[in-house]
Amino acid sequence: MGKKLFLIAGIFFSLAPPAQTKDETFIRRIADEILVNSKAYDNLRTLTKTIGGRLAGSPQMYQAEEWGYQLLKESGSEHTFKQECMVPHWVRGGKDEAWAFPRAVPLRKTAEKIKRPLDITALGNTEGTGPGGITAPVVLINSFEELETKKDQLKGKIVFYNYHFNPRFIRTFEAYSDAVKYRTRGTSLAAKYGALASMVRSMSHSVDNNPHTGGMRYDTAYKKIPAVAVGLRDADWLAAELSKGSPIFVSLKTMGHFLPDAKGHNIIGELKGTEFPNEIITIGGHLDSWDICEGAHDDGAGITQTIEILRAYKALGYRPKRTIRFVLFANEENGTRGAAQYADEAAKNHEKHLLALESDAGGFTPRGFGVTCSDAQFEQLKSWAPLLEPYGTGRFTRGGGGTDVLFIHEKLNVPMAELLPDSQRYFDIHHARSDVFEAVNKRELDLGAVNIAALIYLVDQHGF
Amino acid sequence: MGKKLFLIAGIFFSLAPPAQTKDETFIRRIADEILVNSKAYDNLRTLTKTIGGRLAGSPQMYQAEEWGYQLLKESGSEHTFKQECMVPHWVRGGKDEAWAFPRAVPLRKTAEKIKRPLDITALGNTEGTGPGGITAPVVLINSFEELETKKDQLKGKIVFYNYHFNPRFIRTFEAYSDAVKYRTRGTSLAAKYGALASMVRSMSHSVDNNPHTGGMRYDTAYKKIPAVAVGLRDADWLAAELSKGSPIFVSLKTMGHFLPDAKGHNIIGELKGTEFPNEIITIGGHLDSWDICEGAHDDGAGITQTIEILRAYKALGYRPKRTIRFVLFANEENGTRGAAQYADEAAKNHEKHLLALESDAGGFTPRGFGVTCSDAQFEQLKSWAPLLEPYGTGRFTRGGGGTDVLFIHEKLNVPMAELLPDSQRYFDIHHARSDVFEAVNKRELDLGAVNIAALIYLVDQHGF
Repeated sequence: MGKKLFLIAGIFFSLAPPAQTKDETFIRRIADEILVNSKAYDNLRTLTKTIGGRLAGSPQMYQAEEWGYQLLKESGSEHTFKQECMVPHWVRGGKDEAWAFPRAVPLRKTAEKIKRPLDITALGNTEGTGPGGITAPVVLINSFEELETKKDQLKGKIVFYNYHFNPRFIRTFEAYSDAVKYRTRGTSLAAKYGALASMVRSMSHSVDNNPHTGGMRYDTAYKKIPAVAVGLRDADWLAAELSKGSPIFVSLKTMGHFLPDAKGHNIIGELKGTEFPNEIITIGGHLDSWDICEGAHDDGAGITQTIEILRAYKALGYRPKRTIRFVLFANEENGTRGAAQYADEAAKNHEKHLLALESDAGGFTPRGFGVTCSDAQFEQLKSWAPLLEPYGTGRFTRGGGGTDVLFIHEKLNVPMAELLPDSQRYFDIHHARSDVFEAVNKRELDLGAVNIAALIYLVDQHGF
Repeated sequence: MGKKLFLIAGIFFSLAPPAQTKDETFIRRIADEILVNSKAYDNLRTLTKTIGGRLAGSPQMYQAEEWGYQLLKESGSEHTFKQECMVPHWVRGGKDEAWAFPRAVPLRKTAEKIKRPLDITALGNTEGTGPGGITAPVVLINSFEELETKKDQLKGKIVFYNYHFNPRFIRTFEAYSDAVKYRTRGTSLAAKYGALASMVRSMSHSVDNNPHTGGMRYDTAYKKIPAVAVGLRDADWLAAELSKGSPIFVSLKTMGHFLPDAKGHNIIGELKGTEFPNEIITIGGHLDSWDICEGAHDDGAGITQTIEILRAYKALGYRPKRTIRFVLFANEENGTRGAAQYADEAAKNHEKHLLALESDAGGFTPRGFGVTCSDAQFEQLKSWAPLLEPYGTGRFTRGGGGTDVLFIHEKLNVPMAELLPDSQRYFDIHHARSDVFEAVNKRELDLGAVNIAALIYLVDQHGF
């Protein structure tokens, strides 16, 4: 700006209220703008109902990319671009099916009255059984310790991991961390001992029977056997029957397999910094979702909040000091190639990043932020707590950040953060067919956007 | 206890860990017991699905009383009793109906194509239109100020109050406080100026069109005209049409009226205090609900939490120092006679009450407690905050208490408190047909019980 303008600005600033009050006032304006005019909920409706599940490589992934690209532009992005990355392309390949019955007979010969359908879903990235399916006796395994004690009994069997989501954890993500190893690692451990397939109790404490899919990893040292998750009520039934000593056979049919990697994209919008354009702050969520659901909370919420924050800043005429990036990451669910690409490009371009924040824990009422940063930065965050407290997120906890910002954190030591919404309902719907638009509450979604927008505003204004 | 026992107890206590640790440990046990074994959700299913809506005086009120009485006994109440009170007996009397159309013709002669049904519900305690209904032009009124400016245009008309629930309030109860006067007082103000009926925009920011009923009061100086609430989408449509200047007529039919007062009861369970049996701590919710819903959040949640806390204390073998009362209050929604009776009996019996706490803000994730008490008591509460923080309610705010504990507070100056759950979803379903069992999340409900049980334990152990 010219000198005269600068002087006028100087006078203006000296007459302006102190920084705290200015921040308070602007954060109130952010909240009013979003709570009154938010488009996040309507955008989420389009993403979930018009496009739906959008796993990496699927036609819906491309539809979602185009939708996101256009919406970022319409919402005021000053520079909108696609960042290419190759993504894995796993397909379910058909309907997942399972029946339990008490005798060792091929399914088609089993009388209808003794067949019990099980509500299952193939785990992501798994090999299918093939059209002929797999029929074998089931062995109940409650823990990896028990697996070791029964290792000689697993050859030719289907291992059923029935480890429960522990309800004693108040924050449900701790129950997930505690249990998820049975989904991610259990299959290869079962294969190690000759099992033909593995079934895992769904990672949930829901009251319904919907199975919950999710990523798993094969240990290449062992055979790639099929793996599925079982709905909780069916898991309870199966465990009860097996605990009685009843021999139970299960017939499984799944058709999962990989196609060649596909070309995917991170979709990125920007507001250019007016004072420090080379200092970058990232806000994001992931655009992909599992195929069996609408991906409303996971992570349509994070995506639509990210876009809403851009819209609100523009509507308020906010011109950030630093460059703010609004990133719709590709392929979080089964490959994290988008996150890796974002970090690689940041490194290649010698970008300076102040903070990378993700919203990927559901569109529920915000409670705080988890942040991985230096002690000094954490003190700075805590000094802002009173400004965020009225909107829900006055509580900062150390640690956390989200899968999509982990890569840039690890590669360039960028501080990372995540919105921490109320966690009680998340694992009811996580990766299950119940993760639909109707499970999201408009105000809860909007309040998440309010709080992220407020924190990012503070980082932009005061540096980090 | 005998002297020898007392000495032994003294030795035991001196060897016991410090109070803080003992409290921490016991609160953890409460949480584990409730999070693992709670019956609150199953009890809520029975109350809502088997009995359903249970307005004062209805057959369902009596069923709910009997259900509550038996359940308190089964849950370990040492002294279970019914406290009689006469309750008002308002009945809806039939189906509430409304149609809007652009011409002044009797409904039955209006062509189907120009009739638009409006989703409405008669407000509680109102007089009906009678079977012939009321048909009249509608006048849009956005505020009481506007009512005054239009007072000469209201004779023979239907007043439509379209005051919006203000989305800028972060805590939705503030939006309710701001708007609810149009429901409670608006009708008689319209009658004062000759209106034939009043319609009020529902007290909600929901995305659906369900109308929300609720109590209202007639000013006896004016004619008792019928009053209804309109669903939000229909209210938007009506306001848009009227704002264009289009004349709109509405035909209303409601059949509400009072029957003679009925005999109702507060249903009360007790755990007798082992050291200070005459010091009473009350926990409660209200057993009645509006007739058009299942009363799941309002207040099946408070009722089933109250009973769950009793069950958990007994399951843990907890023998309180003070007497703890578990109170299922009668007739909160349209008369508060149960609360008045409870206060009257406490006064008559010269009871000493330490604290009366209500859960009547929905079965959502607990965030804190609102408490009306002395400064010293508030300091005591704040000293307990670290013990409650891990479970969600480390935040105490001054003020609040709940309708059912207000009477004993006012009559005997008893400190009163209320559980403050997350408020974002409450007014989506409050007094609407969507307040059903399915709207309640099991863990959120249970966590409310955990936090109340923990606070009441602290009050019992340390006095107040």
